[in-house]
Amino acid sequence: MSPPLGINLGSVTDAGQEPRWLDQDEMRAWRNYVTGAAMLEDRLHRELQTGHGLSLADYELMVRLSEQPGGRMRMSQLAEDVASSKSRVSHQVARMEREGLLARRECQDDGRGVLAELTPKGLEALKTAAPTHVDGVREHIIDLLTPQEQEVLAKVFDRVITHLRSLDG
Amino acid sequence: MSPPLGINLGSVTDAGQEPRWLDQDEMRAWRNYVTGAAMLEDRLHRELQTGHGLSLADYELMVRLSEQPGGRMRMSQLAEDVASSKSRVSHQVARMEREGLLARRECQDDGRGVLAELTPKGLEALKTAAPTHVDGVREHIIDLLTPQEQEVLAKVFDRVITHLRSLDG
Repeated sequence: MSPPLGINLGSVTDAGQEPRWLDQDEMRAWRNYVTGAAMLEDRLHRELQTGHGLSLADYELMVRLSEQPGGRMRMSQLAEDVASSKSRVSHQVARMEREGLLARRECQDDGRGVLAELTPKGLEALKTAAPTHVDGVREHIIDLLTPQEQEVLAKVFDRVITHLRSLDG
Repeated sequence: MSPPLGINLGSVTDAGQEPRWLDQDEMRAWRNYVTGAAMLEDRLHRELQTGHGLSLADYELMVRLSEQPGGRMRMSQLAEDVASSKSRVSHQVARMEREGLLARRECQDDGRGVLAELTPKGLEALKTAAPTHVDGVREHIIDLLTPQEQEVLAKVFDRVITHLRSLDG
């Protein structure tokens, strides 16, 4: 077993205004989540990379575009949806454009802003990779959970999303 | 509302061997988790970056070292613990060494392998940043959950970890 867990640095921080360190149960929840989420992301990424030469980040970006009418979306909205910075998404989209998966277009509505658009090659890559990804999501998390646990997961992260959106809004 | 959610590409994939697409409840659990986890990571990262000039990835790596005797750990173990590739961790450690947060040492046990070791400056950076991080973890997830929900989160990701370790083992 590893020593007292991660985030609690009560033993080493300066005395004075002690923050409310996590108790044992809270720490177990947080630590398992952080480790499990990182391992899960890494696994799903490697499955897409090995099977289809796609990164998980590229896959998720293309999924979001595929859900939009015409497979296109404003870059700023895209950045918000994948919880990434505009500059990071901008680099990612530029690279994916060079790979032929996406194209960038000017937004015709108002002349401002740029749209990212899924190309036929991008849609094809997504279609080919999707069965691999859904199999991984089932095997590595969804099918390991009871319907009740799935419901808790949905509720908990819905609350996190609502809370975080309220901070940015 | 957004159109039918993300991972389900039943409408666009080739017919034939249909994978088991997620049903509505499974999709809601998966989608909320993916989005919430990305937003949470982004928020905690920005809080550390703004407040202390540290990335979340650097913080998590230093936490793991701080838990070890002498604040040191084999690079290969470190990569496993943060669910990252050896080459990515190797670059990260080299950069952090240049910043004075870590030092690399030869492993004395067997002459093979390299250890990463937290420097006094690294430990100081960690101590300074820890209260910010624990406040964020409480505010953005832990304090939003009931004890029962925390317990489900702990159990669910413990199962994910055990499952994923069994695949690599």
